[in-house]
Amino acid sequence: MSNSEHEYSCDNTLMQLLGIRTPIIRQGDDLVQILLESLEKQGTKLQNGDIIVLAESAVATSEGRVVRLADIEPTEEACELALNYQLDPREMQLIIEECDEIFGGVPGAALTITRGTLSPNAGIDSSNAPDGCVVLLPEDPQKSAAFIRKGLEKAFSCHIGVIVGDSRTQPLRLGCVGIALGTSGIEPVEDARGSLDIFGKELKITRKAVADNIVSAAQLVMGEAGESIPAVIIKGAPVKMIEGSVEMPLFSREECMYYSNINKNRK
Amino acid sequence: MSNSEHEYSCDNTLMQLLGIRTPIIRQGDDLVQILLESLEKQGTKLQNGDIIVLAESAVATSEGRVVRLADIEPTEEACELALNYQLDPREMQLIIEECDEIFGGVPGAALTITRGTLSPNAGIDSSNAPDGCVVLLPEDPQKSAAFIRKGLEKAFSCHIGVIVGDSRTQPLRLGCVGIALGTSGIEPVEDARGSLDIFGKELKITRKAVADNIVSAAQLVMGEAGESIPAVIIKGAPVKMIEGSVEMPLFSREECMYYSNINKNRK
Repeated sequence: MSNSEHEYSCDNTLMQLLGIRTPIIRQGDDLVQILLESLEKQGTKLQNGDIIVLAESAVATSEGRVVRLADIEPTEEACELALNYQLDPREMQLIIEECDEIFGGVPGAALTITRGTLSPNAGIDSSNAPDGCVVLLPEDPQKSAAFIRKGLEKAFSCHIGVIVGDSRTQPLRLGCVGIALGTSGIEPVEDARGSLDIFGKELKITRKAVADNIVSAAQLVMGEAGESIPAVIIKGAPVKMIEGSVEMPLFSREECMYYSNINKNRK
Repeated sequence: MSNSEHEYSCDNTLMQLLGIRTPIIRQGDDLVQILLESLEKQGTKLQNGDIIVLAESAVATSEGRVVRLADIEPTEEACELALNYQLDPREMQLIIEECDEIFGGVPGAALTITRGTLSPNAGIDSSNAPDGCVVLLPEDPQKSAAFIRKGLEKAFSCHIGVIVGDSRTQPLRLGCVGIALGTSGIEPVEDARGSLDIFGKELKITRKAVADNIVSAAQLVMGEAGESIPAVIIKGAPVKMIEGSVEMPLFSREECMYYSNINKNRK
């Protein structure tokens, strides 16, 4: 990272985030090409160790995951569940098709697990979708991250990380934070077990959700609304770069203190 | 924000994070004084709009919230619950005393609500505590944030934001992300309802957990272990500054899709 001209002293604790403004992303767009053009327009070059966070809606849209609700014929099950959760029956139909499991909900949101990740409404969103349409999650966010990483790395001859990010609510908290759906080129969860605390004692169970934290940081710059900043560059993040991609590590449902309590109480 | 010498063009999408290294914080320490000395040593000045994230353990320790486990006499109830959740009975006793409510748990963690926030083990932590001791959460994190903000603002004659942050796991995710326990000088949750998406449609239910996202960003720089970086400055965060402090807005248990499902299943 080059920060010699910076007002701060050069230090490994300096991290920088820069939004990338793009035109509106549409179905079939070449996202790598759009990012390259937008970066050039801003005069920004990617360097080794940089991380790009991409909004899942932009990735999904470019991959053609936009569905016209008028084309969906809801089943009886979907109509029933839609009443339960006060959702559009056609959106409910898509949720059923997309998710692995529905295990509850509140008015406006069915609580699902979709591709291993807890996703209200299977991650289906009508924001930033054309009128009358919704955007499904990217089919394979890790594959998308790997594909975009390779395209950008080739253009800049460097090793970077790419994260496809989304937003989620947390239990009993108001407002959305970031979550990583897929990553490539970085270690998404850092295992800090065995590290020592400031008193030299061994930490017991601390893992850091590095990729989720990076998406949360990026969302500050990105915004949720019409800012047209679907991508953010992070420079100087103290993240472990890797060759290739690793799956988001799974957390067993029994170990999860939230899920296991939902589960237990259901019996 | 002064970034005229920076390699990027001046842009409102540039955000910077800088860790503040301090000596180990001990009980009774004047945290404002330590921060001022550490900032001076690093040659960093605070400016209007800067936000400081402080690790709750540093704040709590300076406020004397360190408890020697040997001094705690667990009740029968604590011993029973400690067996249930595989915790030290003395720590369990402190959890009972600190929390508003225990509503479940897994081995190693009792799931509680403590001062309105979902906090495993009532936020009590033995990491970064002296041997044989644990650190309780700050008694009133918002008050702590306001106090430290005033001290720093006076020294630098500027208006800043202060957040007392902690880490939390998310449902079915591996690893900890950031959470704001108390804030001062900023709007902790931004209401984006009524904003327009990229297609000009009104967003329906999006609120941004700005303070939580800022803590997550800071935790990338901070680390969880013995790095002695209990504070991080964020410059250029697109956050709404306010006079004074507002409480973290409460989310009703019924509206929360996680909690309401736990709750429903209990009936």
